[in-house]
Amino acid sequence: MSMRSRPIITLLSDFGLKDSYVAEMKAVILSICPEAHIVDISHEIKKFDIKMGAFLLARAARFFPKGTVHVAVIDPGVGSERRSIIVETERGFYVGPDNGVLMLSAQMDGVKHVYLIKEQKYMLRRISKTFHGRDIFSPVAAYLASGIPPSEFGPEIFDPIMPNFAKPKVSGNLIEGEIIHIDDFGNIITNITHSDIESLGIKEGEILGVRLGYKDLKIKLCSAYSEVQINTPLTIIGSADFLEVSVNQGDASKFFGVKVGEKISIYKLVN
Amino acid sequence: MSMRSRPIITLLSDFGLKDSYVAEMKAVILSICPEAHIVDISHEIKKFDIKMGAFLLARAARFFPKGTVHVAVIDPGVGSERRSIIVETERGFYVGPDNGVLMLSAQMDGVKHVYLIKEQKYMLRRISKTFHGRDIFSPVAAYLASGIPPSEFGPEIFDPIMPNFAKPKVSGNLIEGEIIHIDDFGNIITNITHSDIESLGIKEGEILGVRLGYKDLKIKLCSAYSEVQINTPLTIIGSADFLEVSVNQGDASKFFGVKVGEKISIYKLVN
Amino acid sequence: MSMRSRPIITLLSDFGLKDSYVAEMKAVILSICPEAHIVDISHEIKKFDIKMGAFLLARAARFFPKGTVHVAVIDPGVGSERRSIIVETERGFYVGPDNGVLMLSAQMDGVKHVYLIKEQKYMLRRISKTFHGRDIFSPVAAYLASGIPPSEFGPEIFDPIMPNFAKPKVSGNLIEGEIIHIDDFGNIITNITHSDIESLGIKEGEILGVRLGYKDLKIKLCSAYSEVQINTPLTIIGSADFLEVSVNQGDASKFFGVKVGEKISIYKLVN
Repeated sequence: MSMRSRPIITLLSDFGLKDSYVAEMKAVILSICPEAHIVDISHEIKKFDIKMGAFLLARAARFFPKGTVHVAVIDPGVGSERRSIIVETERGFYVGPDNGVLMLSAQMDGVKHVYLIKEQKYMLRRISKTFHGRDIFSPVAAYLASGIPPSEFGPEIFDPIMPNFAKPKVSGNLIEGEIIHIDDFGNIITNITHSDIESLGIKEGEILGVRLGYKDLKIKLCSAYSEVQINTPLTIIGSADFLEVSVNQGDASKFFGVKVGEKISIYKLVN
Repeated sequence: MSMRSRPIITLLSDFGLKDSYVAEMKAVILSICPEAHIVDISHEIKKFDIKMGAFLLARAARFFPKGTVHVAVIDPGVGSERRSIIVETERGFYVGPDNGVLMLSAQMDGVKHVYLIKEQKYMLRRISKTFHGRDIFSPVAAYLASGIPPSEFGPEIFDPIMPNFAKPKVSGNLIEGEIIHIDDFGNIITNITHSDIESLGIKEGEILGVRLGYKDLKIKLCSAYSEVQINTPLTIIGSADFLEVSVNQGDASKFFGVKVGEKISIYKLVN
Repeated sequence: MSMRSRPIITLLSDFGLKDSYVAEMKAVILSICPEAHIVDISHEIKKFDIKMGAFLLARAARFFPKGTVHVAVIDPGVGSERRSIIVETERGFYVGPDNGVLMLSAQMDGVKHVYLIKEQKYMLRRISKTFHGRDIFSPVAAYLASGIPPSEFGPEIFDPIMPNFAKPKVSGNLIEGEIIHIDDFGNIITNITHSDIESLGIKEGEILGVRLGYKDLKIKLCSAYSEVQINTPLTIIGSADFLEVSVNQGDASKFFGVKVGEKISIYKLVN
């Protein structure tokens, strides 16, 4: 994979934006690779929520150009024996802790190799106990973006930790899935895909049965939020190709009183 | 208008910063126009609040260099029949939904032409139902920044939707205006201009009558917050040339208990 | 100090991210110095909290390359007689109000000269009363980054205002310090340094006495959060070399019920 004249490095973390942590990572990157173009994916991941980080990284990564280096720091095990890794994929590189946060997106790209990060010459001289994002992952990403091959950073491994995402169950007229994300609008993103919906013979414009929270409602599968009245629930295939439950100009997570990880059932109505 | 070597693209939305939506827009832009310099105006616009988006876009846009491409995605009608437009002005370009969010700023620049966005070759291949910010507006902005003329994207139109901002009424010794924005400090920004104030013969340093919320107070027109004691209300001509009501080192919106859209009256005191 | 081909300008403020204020500063900078690489340190500094701004600026600045221009706008005195300054240090430049926010970091770099900002040709033509961040500090930073020497902006001064940070007291087996920051995780950062801890003969892995809030607890000095159970308190030397009190995967500030400025005592336990 050849390097671009202005390599892109993305950052994702649970650091929030109040502190200087994200800026310290950028400072380290720009000290090593001044031509890097750094793009924030999100720093508002729920603290220590590896699955939320993995999901949002996978959503965003596929839109970046080939050769992009993605750094993801959801790292409750920082300073412990948890490994630091580089994943080389068909589309780019991932740098971060070996706890699953990188692998959902890497698998969607197609994994080529996974390497341990061991070479101290590619880290800051002093490694803190609490901030490997700055002291290890940022310099490694900057050296990768500068063209150092990933195999230079340490030995190849074959057992990276995989994230644990449930798949929906389709049986007869019923799909049982779960909520994988609730966005800032309150839209409820499920793990039910476009093809799951099609496999039940459900088409856009049709009314579905939806069991969610304490509610069991008949809801339209729309192709635009505005097909229903304001403050009315709807379902729609969202921008990551998953079924989403929304409320037109409202907050669906409050309407249904639900959280990430809860179950949802979709069923075809009999005429 | 000639293109700069590093064209600037600004982004404004109600997406918040928790999700990966903003990063997905940036990824699409950089895939098409790698040399773009992307600047966030705000992604914390109140959900679906077209007027707030229009106001903040207009505040910021006038400071950007000529040729800047502004993308604004406050888009409750996404997926419906609402049109997508490019506005070419004397100072740059605006890309977004035809719902008024672009036109306040465009009118301040001086509108040259408004074009529909119709050409599918300037969009992503797959258009989602819920995220035209990523699938239509971002690639269009990137192609514009790369030098494609705006007339290439679709036919000219002459009836863009205008935003609806009230003007203050001046009569005798009284100005009746309204609150157009409350900033993160709690400063109350009104639609009353510097010239409205001057037309009443009011000068800096003078004490004004201010009716706001349930209060009717005598307040100084200051030239610095610190001209009054800490936690004391003041009025001041703010950085967008509108009259603002503030509290020195405090939160004026809490002090007065008011929200955007509420009325304010300013009157000249008789000696 | 020679200028880089892509000079870095950092921004720190208490503006928040809802408004367009930060974008207006960036617009002004890019109009004057289009090649500038602007990096946000934080815009979520507590309103008017000069010490918090000074601490986070000092944390981050030392990781940026030489020649970086840092702009910090925590500016309750905007529009008053408070002075505007440029500080030239061994590592770069600082631009902002003369209220202490710049000097902690500048002193850590090594101060060379402090200059008043007086030359109107390096400011915007119209100076608002409330937003010198945009109208004075941004253009000054952009001209500095473009290579104008700092002595061109105004006369040298020798009495900049210093920030007021308490030092810990070490006596016998006891260190009395205070909380200087609480980060977004709820980690409690104290003013007690690594060397203070070592001067008591305390080593990693040892159990310390910690008096904090209404609690007096025996807590381990760890080298990784995960050395204690989840939701258990620990102490650790943090990424700025200060002693921090944390809770593994929890919020230490809530656990102890404490705020910035409160006292903390550390004592060596007798076997």
